[in-house]
Amino acid sequence: MIIIGEKINSTLKAIRPAIESYDAKTIQDLAIKQHEAGAAYIDVNAGMFHDDEPQRLVWLIETIQEVTDAPFAIDSPNPAAIEAALRANKNAKPIINSITNEKERYNAIAPLAVEYKTGIIALCMDDAGMPETVEDRVTIAGRLIEKLTKQGVAIGDIYIDPMIRPIGTGSQNGVVALETMRRVKAEYPDVHLTCGLSNISFGLPARKLINQAFLVAAMSAGLDSAILDPLDKRLMSFLYATEALMGLDDFCMNYLTMFREGRLEF
Amino acid sequence: MIIIGEKINSTLKAIRPAIESYDAKTIQDLAIKQHEAGAAYIDVNAGMFHDDEPQRLVWLIETIQEVTDAPFAIDSPNPAAIEAALRANKNAKPIINSITNEKERYNAIAPLAVEYKTGIIALCMDDAGMPETVEDRVTIAGRLIEKLTKQGVAIGDIYIDPMIRPIGTGSQNGVVALETMRRVKAEYPDVHLTCGLSNISFGLPARKLINQAFLVAAMSAGLDSAILDPLDKRLMSFLYATEALMGLDDFCMNYLTMFREGRLEF
Repeated sequence: MIIIGEKINSTLKAIRPAIESYDAKTIQDLAIKQHEAGAAYIDVNAGMFHDDEPQRLVWLIETIQEVTDAPFAIDSPNPAAIEAALRANKNAKPIINSITNEKERYNAIAPLAVEYKTGIIALCMDDAGMPETVEDRVTIAGRLIEKLTKQGVAIGDIYIDPMIRPIGTGSQNGVVALETMRRVKAEYPDVHLTCGLSNISFGLPARKLINQAFLVAAMSAGLDSAILDPLDKRLMSFLYATEALMGLDDFCMNYLTMFREGRLEF
Repeated sequence: MIIIGEKINSTLKAIRPAIESYDAKTIQDLAIKQHEAGAAYIDVNAGMFHDDEPQRLVWLIETIQEVTDAPFAIDSPNPAAIEAALRANKNAKPIINSITNEKERYNAIAPLAVEYKTGIIALCMDDAGMPETVEDRVTIAGRLIEKLTKQGVAIGDIYIDPMIRPIGTGSQNGVVALETMRRVKAEYPDVHLTCGLSNISFGLPARKLINQAFLVAAMSAGLDSAILDPLDKRLMSFLYATEALMGLDDFCMNYLTMFREGRLEF
């Protein structure tokens, strides 16, 4: 699993003040901790600072790359902020988080992925909004993959996000997400699948239980990347257990190592 | 999910003495508790008492049906023990646990399922032993389904068990089990799928983690029944969460009820 550590996000109440006050130490610690806990990418989001989002994002990038060479997931729908972040970035190939098939957003962001040779998270939505059915999602995913690869993005650099809607607002929302993953993976075996896990449980009690179960189900549907909290020890324990279950951990070596190092919570 | 409560089993160290000493109270309490915790069927196993297995099994049946009308899963490979138990049974339609496609075992047990109009758990194995591949398992499942239905067993009374082998002894064992479930369910939508969950984690540390993850993955592959410990609150919590995820719990009503009643552990 390619883990994108979600914690450095201005929409999180615990983090926003650290970005607001330019508290480098807090941000750097959080980046290091997430990387050590298994995050391959560090997500950075400064979206709550509307007017100076680009400048705040650049500060995050510069601050974090002082202490770790983990690549970034640049989390913004704003092309100016993304480009500023890409210019500031000195770490390895980042991921843009995210593009959609909305015409304006697509046309502004796709060229950045091409020019800076980045990975890119592509959300299954377009100018008609968030699609209802599996069929519509798979169609949009296909369009995004065709367009991006035609412009020169390698298919292995594309991360399709099926757009998770809460099961609390529609009993079939989990099934739709899982079936979309299965269908996209079957049609495009080389594309990555990612998602923001915790949306699935929005509005329900005991959210962690739903999130843990959804991680397992999604991995068994082909999810090979997720935007999550790598410091959530129990969630990560399920991730390692599921890798072992899915035949992705030869002789359960990684699972056994995690157990020996006391990194499993059960 | 159709839950078969696994606890009244002579191979369990904590239970064997209660069967040995005819401790009716312990057995009855355990039956009631499992039923209250959500077990639709109470598994009864007296296999450790080789010589008087039939008589011990009859005692279990008679003892338990004094206090609950939950139907039984009669857990034995021994036709004489199964028939004695079926004769003693006064509760609703039981399940025979289990038949295989081994010639001798099949020929001795299938007529009992027909005569007593029971459900039946059919294990994917035959005289060649436990099959290695998904293909071989699906073939055996198909043969068992064809033969049993031809003899008059309704397809909805058949519970196919793909035979779980531990991932600790083969990295692909989880994938093989899940893929077998998916294939059998696709070919025979009306058949039930069941399994003994905990075999998957045999020999590994932190087994509960693997079992919980496997339950979720298997349910997303079509498992609609399981032989498990319904008194394991966390495992049951995952079961309810996964039913909600899979669109099997309208408006998450059951999940919310379980939460309100304090029956979720998270």
